[in-house]
Amino acid sequence: MSADVEILAFDVFGTVVDWHGSIVREIEKRGYDIDAAKFARSWRDGYQPAMQRVRSGELGWTKIDVLHRLILDEVLEEYGLPIDDAERRELNLIWHRLQPWPDAVQGLGQLKRVYTICTLSNGNLSLLSNMAKRAGLPWDLILSAEVFNAYKPAKETYLGVADVFDVSPDKVMLVAAHRSDLVAARQSGLKTAYIERPLEYGADQVKDVSVDARNDFHAKDFVDLAGQLIS
Amino acid sequence: MSADVEILAFDVFGTVVDWHGSIVREIEKRGYDIDAAKFARSWRDGYQPAMQRVRSGELGWTKIDVLHRLILDEVLEEYGLPIDDAERRELNLIWHRLQPWPDAVQGLGQLKRVYTICTLSNGNLSLLSNMAKRAGLPWDLILSAEVFNAYKPAKETYLGVADVFDVSPDKVMLVAAHRSDLVAARQSGLKTAYIERPLEYGADQVKDVSVDARNDFHAKDFVDLAGQLIS
Repeated sequence: MSADVEILAFDVFGTVVDWHGSIVREIEKRGYDIDAAKFARSWRDGYQPAMQRVRSGELGWTKIDVLHRLILDEVLEEYGLPIDDAERRELNLIWHRLQPWPDAVQGLGQLKRVYTICTLSNGNLSLLSNMAKRAGLPWDLILSAEVFNAYKPAKETYLGVADVFDVSPDKVMLVAAHRSDLVAARQSGLKTAYIERPLEYGADQVKDVSVDARNDFHAKDFVDLAGQLIS
Repeated sequence: MSADVEILAFDVFGTVVDWHGSIVREIEKRGYDIDAAKFARSWRDGYQPAMQRVRSGELGWTKIDVLHRLILDEVLEEYGLPIDDAERRELNLIWHRLQPWPDAVQGLGQLKRVYTICTLSNGNLSLLSNMAKRAGLPWDLILSAEVFNAYKPAKETYLGVADVFDVSPDKVMLVAAHRSDLVAARQSGLKTAYIERPLEYGADQVKDVSVDARNDFHAKDFVDLAGQLIS
């Protein structure tokens, strides 16, 4: 099977980078007097509802940078943290500076020797590009919901990767730490690889990472995935 | 001025890669009994008219890979070269394998340390991605007409780069070896840098590379540009 796949498309937030840990470290560094772990989850909790406003048509096409800021303003209100516009703008850009999981750069480097590796993220292009530049993520191509004007799990995004590379959907494998993303990818005919990221939501809210036999691969991390794919 | 620019957007065919030399070498390697230098120019001559069919609305959105094949079929007819479909498909992918000018990888590496470097090409995403992977072109982001559904010199492409990075147009500089591209970029408010590529059309058809004072920079090649931009 793995010999047939040509393109590995990676989910990013939570799969490649540790959004929770990165935000917690930033909040603690800034010395805000709040529960940093809970604050990070509150910010992230606004993500799906905000994209749903775009999917439903209530909002026209809106980049994640803008949605992240809308959510941030609400969460800051909720936490009673009075910071000014310039600081909010700077804080919002933390999503461009998220740090990769420890295995990510090494594993991507190994996979890149054999496969074309790209992102398939709801993050916008500048966010993904700034993140890659800073963290040294060696993407062959950065693809985003912004290219397809649709947010995952819309099928336009999964089929969009196959269309860009002019291959059938089963030549593309989505690599992600989220079951709903993988389910939608399979519905569009892609292969799927699940990556365990038990600490995605923090050490105080460990995630179930049990095996789902519908995935073509199940790996602890990217180095493990490279070991399974490349013999 | 150069301190203000944040994004360098590069034209690719002729500016980063040597399409003429690459095609000539391929034709000679394949042993086709034709004038390789002239054949390369004939193929490239079909490029603007083919894109014009898209710009005018005669064709819906069509990738360069498809346009290159349409042109190739016409040119092969003209040269009386009878090769089959599989060979045509393989030959058409030469545009994914174009070789960079000798200074390109080194110059881009220097520029990347200070600027965000991206493509702004009419080439499609897979073409640009395959080319970069093969040649080691270290783009921070690959942007293409395919992202904007418009071919240069449409203003949507130049303004699209500024929009992607959420900056004003004068924070973006187009780097190109073609005057018409630079003129259009300036009309959209971008800065411009001209790169001399006197041999773009081959040694038997040397290009005028004289200075045009309307450009912000004029450089022999990318290493020269890096020397001018980075002190």
